[in-house]
Amino acid sequence: MNYRLKILPQNKTIKVREDEILADKIQEAGINLSVYCNKRGICGKCFVKIAEGKLPTLEEREIFLLENKGLSKDYRLACLYRIKSNLSIEIPEESVIQDAFILKTGIKLPIALEPSIKKYYLQLKKPEISDPYSLSELFRSYFQDKNLVIPFNLLKESLNIVEQSKFNVTAVVYNDDEILNIEQKNTLDKNFGIAIDLGTTTVVVELVDLNSGESIDITTAANSQMEYGSDVISRISYACTNPKNLDKLKESILETINLMIKQMLDKNNVNSSYVYEVVVAANTSMNHLLLGMPVKSLAVAPFSSVFTCLSPLPLADLGFKINSCGKVYIAPNIKSFVGGDISAGLIASDLANTKGNYLFIDLGTNGEIVLKTKDEFVVTSTAAGPAFEGMNISCGTLASPGAIYKAEYENRLALFTIGHKRATGVCGTGLIDLLAIFLDTGKISEKGKINDKTKKIPLNGSIYINQKDVREMQLAVGAIKTGIRMILKEFHLSKEKLDGIYIAGAFGNYLNIKNSMKIGLLPQIDEDKVIFIGNSSLAGAKALLLSKPAREKIDSLVRRMRYFSLASHPLFQKYFIEALEFHMY
Amino acid sequence: MNYRLKILPQNKTIKVREDEILADKIQEAGINLSVYCNKRGICGKCFVKIAEGKLPTLEEREIFLLENKGLSKDYRLACLYRIKSNLSIEIPEESVIQDAFILKTGIKLPIALEPSIKKYYLQLKKPEISDPYSLSELFRSYFQDKNLVIPFNLLKESLNIVEQSKFNVTAVVYNDDEILNIEQKNTLDKNFGIAIDLGTTTVVVELVDLNSGESIDITTAANSQMEYGSDVISRISYACTNPKNLDKLKESILETINLMIKQMLDKNNVNSSYVYEVVVAANTSMNHLLLGMPVKSLAVAPFSSVFTCLSPLPLADLGFKINSCGKVYIAPNIKSFVGGDISAGLIASDLANTKGNYLFIDLGTNGEIVLKTKDEFVVTSTAAGPAFEGMNISCGTLASPGAIYKAEYENRLALFTIGHKRATGVCGTGLIDLLAIFLDTGKISEKGKINDKTKKIPLNGSIYINQKDVREMQLAVGAIKTGIRMILKEFHLSKEKLDGIYIAGAFGNYLNIKNSMKIGLLPQIDEDKVIFIGNSSLAGAKALLLSKPAREKIDSLVRRMRYFSLASHPLFQKYFIEALEFHMY
Repeated sequence: MNYRLKILPQNKTIKVREDEILADKIQEAGINLSVYCNKRGICGKCFVKIAEGKLPTLEEREIFLLENKGLSKDYRLACLYRIKSNLSIEIPEESVIQDAFILKTGIKLPIALEPSIKKYYLQLKKPEISDPYSLSELFRSYFQDKNLVIPFNLLKESLNIVEQSKFNVTAVVYNDDEILNIEQKNTLDKNFGIAIDLGTTTVVVELVDLNSGESIDITTAANSQMEYGSDVISRISYACTNPKNLDKLKESILETINLMIKQMLDKNNVNSSYVYEVVVAANTSMNHLLLGMPVKSLAVAPFSSVFTCLSPLPLADLGFKINSCGKVYIAPNIKSFVGGDISAGLIASDLANTKGNYLFIDLGTNGEIVLKTKDEFVVTSTAAGPAFEGMNISCGTLASPGAIYKAEYENRLALFTIGHKRATGVCGTGLIDLLAIFLDTGKISEKGKINDKTKKIPLNGSIYINQKDVREMQLAVGAIKTGIRMILKEFHLSKEKLDGIYIAGAFGNYLNIKNSMKIGLLPQIDEDKVIFIGNSSLAGAKALLLSKPAREKIDSLVRRMRYFSLASHPLFQKYFIEALEFHMY
Repeated sequence: MNYRLKILPQNKTIKVREDEILADKIQEAGINLSVYCNKRGICGKCFVKIAEGKLPTLEEREIFLLENKGLSKDYRLACLYRIKSNLSIEIPEESVIQDAFILKTGIKLPIALEPSIKKYYLQLKKPEISDPYSLSELFRSYFQDKNLVIPFNLLKESLNIVEQSKFNVTAVVYNDDEILNIEQKNTLDKNFGIAIDLGTTTVVVELVDLNSGESIDITTAANSQMEYGSDVISRISYACTNPKNLDKLKESILETINLMIKQMLDKNNVNSSYVYEVVVAANTSMNHLLLGMPVKSLAVAPFSSVFTCLSPLPLADLGFKINSCGKVYIAPNIKSFVGGDISAGLIASDLANTKGNYLFIDLGTNGEIVLKTKDEFVVTSTAAGPAFEGMNISCGTLASPGAIYKAEYENRLALFTIGHKRATGVCGTGLIDLLAIFLDTGKISEKGKINDKTKKIPLNGSIYINQKDVREMQLAVGAIKTGIRMILKEFHLSKEKLDGIYIAGAFGNYLNIKNSMKIGLLPQIDEDKVIFIGNSSLAGAKALLLSKPAREKIDSLVRRMRYFSLASHPLFQKYFIEALEFHMY
């Protein structure tokens, strides 16, 4: 039998058939109905008002969920409702999936709020003597999933929990197929996750509410592995000298992150037992070092890694201080030197779904350059060194309060510090401005020579730049320039055909585009085409924390991307030597 | 394009189309082609000789596998072969799945030899600088499975293993989707598993070769938990008196099993590192106690258990002394008092696929009775107590050498002992014979009274039966009789309509059918319809170890079966009191 289904407020009318499930038809009509529990009648998020049409008797679960939401008796769960008549329904706003937005600066990208960690409040039936079903059956039947995984140790403990809270418990479910934990009573409103951008130099940790998708707090700290080497190469070689060193590096960064987590949770009055997942976006070396994975193969040609994609890890494999039943998701690496920070960044930039020719450049200690055209989706990596992050520079500093982040020259040199504090040093963007200015004013030659015989340019008080600093910057800029020029050449794309360049990384909006082009860091294109997307690694980690579909996207992205190896290319040496001069291109 | 495919020696000719995969067509022709690796071109088990037709260039993997098997160059892997011409092929015997047989006594049931643990010898490619793929990618691409799970700790260790054995390794794969371990060099010929029948009174451990399906050794021991109580009820109450007692019971049985495993492996020169799976079939209480699962809910009404089906456990959750990367599979319980011993037994008897009306009776400490008709598949359980196993009987003993297992009477009493040894006591089958004889000779009344005023019947030397022993047997026999009568009545089946009764349990062939009917243990039906299937719990465990399809069967069986509760039935008391007399029925 055919019926007519009218949907308000969207004002759509579609044909439906007898016994079809209302939720399916609403989705087919293009409405993003919230089916959090995969249409199992548990979450109560797909209630719709039956304005006209048959009102079947409420199921036991529906009664409880209706009462809980304070809805009138003409509401029904669309996932349990079988169509038996013409219908006119009204969908309340709460029953439509709300998007979360993952970037605070730059592009604001909506993502479907569907975290891997979901909570369900269950009112379990007590077993009876005529049918003494087991606790595992009880859970599985509630979720209508005969294959639902219930870990052994959880089963051991859950009998007590269920009995103590009189069969009313909250189940924490992972990826719709595994119960991670059983909490007493109703704890639906307490569901948090942590996104981490683990950089070689800095670590950023963000606390996120998985119910709303909102960021609760963000905190930044220096990567404590710095004491074992400022760049990944020196840390890898440290790890290789003694098996215990790998553990030291691991413990060091874990300790830092756990302290950051603890302080952030305390500050925001969030109990760590309500945090069930950590998502980490990090470059390949850093995620190997975080996990204590052997790094010796990263140290020698062909520079292969131990893993690219990892299955989500049980928390026991790692020492994060969240709920011990939790999970850790590591954003997949693309290749040895193209890590999860880049794959996450690409998710945040949504480059895979953007039409046109684009470059995505991450200006970190390791520079990664992605080229996306109609036919190609290819990535290369180039060792820029830590100069952009103010490391190995005499008066260099991270982009923290007091850092000279910007310089201008009109008759005299004007220096600007972060937070208008007293200058403490120069950070990457400041160095780029200064190089451009000194090139213009002739204090530095195109070959990078400081013309003054002191080989030192004073800036402010005791802060200066010397010849060694300029050389460090030449290597950093040259590495990026080589990568951009070679990837464009290899795939036959002139810079004029670029529709845009995304700039990721800590530089953010501080980077002066004109100056970057002047010293040859970026190719000369229309300035409007250069788009800063901020810390896309963190934004991507947050997207992966909040949205299962983002995880599916990243998997297909990693499979699709090709790697273009600079180091093994016969023209590499030639391009690199050319790139060491501060030329526009 | 259509072609013709002729298959020898089966002498079948079928139509095929261009580009179809040869392996698929051979299977469609009804030939049980061996596709161990799920047609991924790794195992080399589906070689066929191309007698007529196109011979495509050998793939790199094929060359290696051909050489390994010493086959000529006109053999091809059927799973890699795309049809491009008319074909005539010859299938060697080795390329057809060989059945394994799971029962040594009674019914011999063929099962497809497809263990959950599979081994593959891999010749991995070394990464190159132009494409420095990771180790995880390397494995996943070899298995053509992007989602293959590689545990974190294995990844950590496998780099060394792979390098040390020069990229030639053996992968141990579980359920086709998880790499459990990486072994150096080629260890394909060493692949073992262990099947365990864990009974309340006795434990039987069997070592099985997963390549051939053959049993290597079987060993039996008393359940060491006996010291904490001879039946499950007393052990459960012991476990409930102190949380540490549950651990004691667990440790006790683990220690016994591990000792049995060690002795058996040593005796047969099998290294425990080549054993990757243990399958346990046990009643619900025993598998809860083995796993250290709380048993308090089993002690009080409604007698519900913590679990019925468990996901396969990583070995770390349990302390079996096999390879530490291994798995433990627990045969699923059906209901609280109908355990994995019964579900395994039903797999071994193949009752689900047998047409007709059948009873399946397990005569253990706990008696389980399954009724299978066209419409019903229902199970009940009844507490028989340990008398059938010779426990709680003055001169009772297990069915071990020296046990009086059989008695006959012609003018005088003749007693038979196992192994013709000097009599040490009476076991269950002996007791049944003696009761029948003493009923006939009037030494015992139908109400179970010993007529002699000494209330003691001497048998042999110091061995005797007394009034208490007869009472114990009355309770045991009465429990089974009540179960059989009530289940037949509830589902409206007269005993005349039974096509057979399967008798499982330790009794084996020793049980005298006529005598069993005389005392009322079994209903009076044609004696030929009573079929002994021996230790079907162990046979089922072996089937589950050797055959993934058996695991799928057992899952659907457990879902399909209904539970018939005797204890809550209003007629239970009446039937039980009636059943306490030694009447035929």
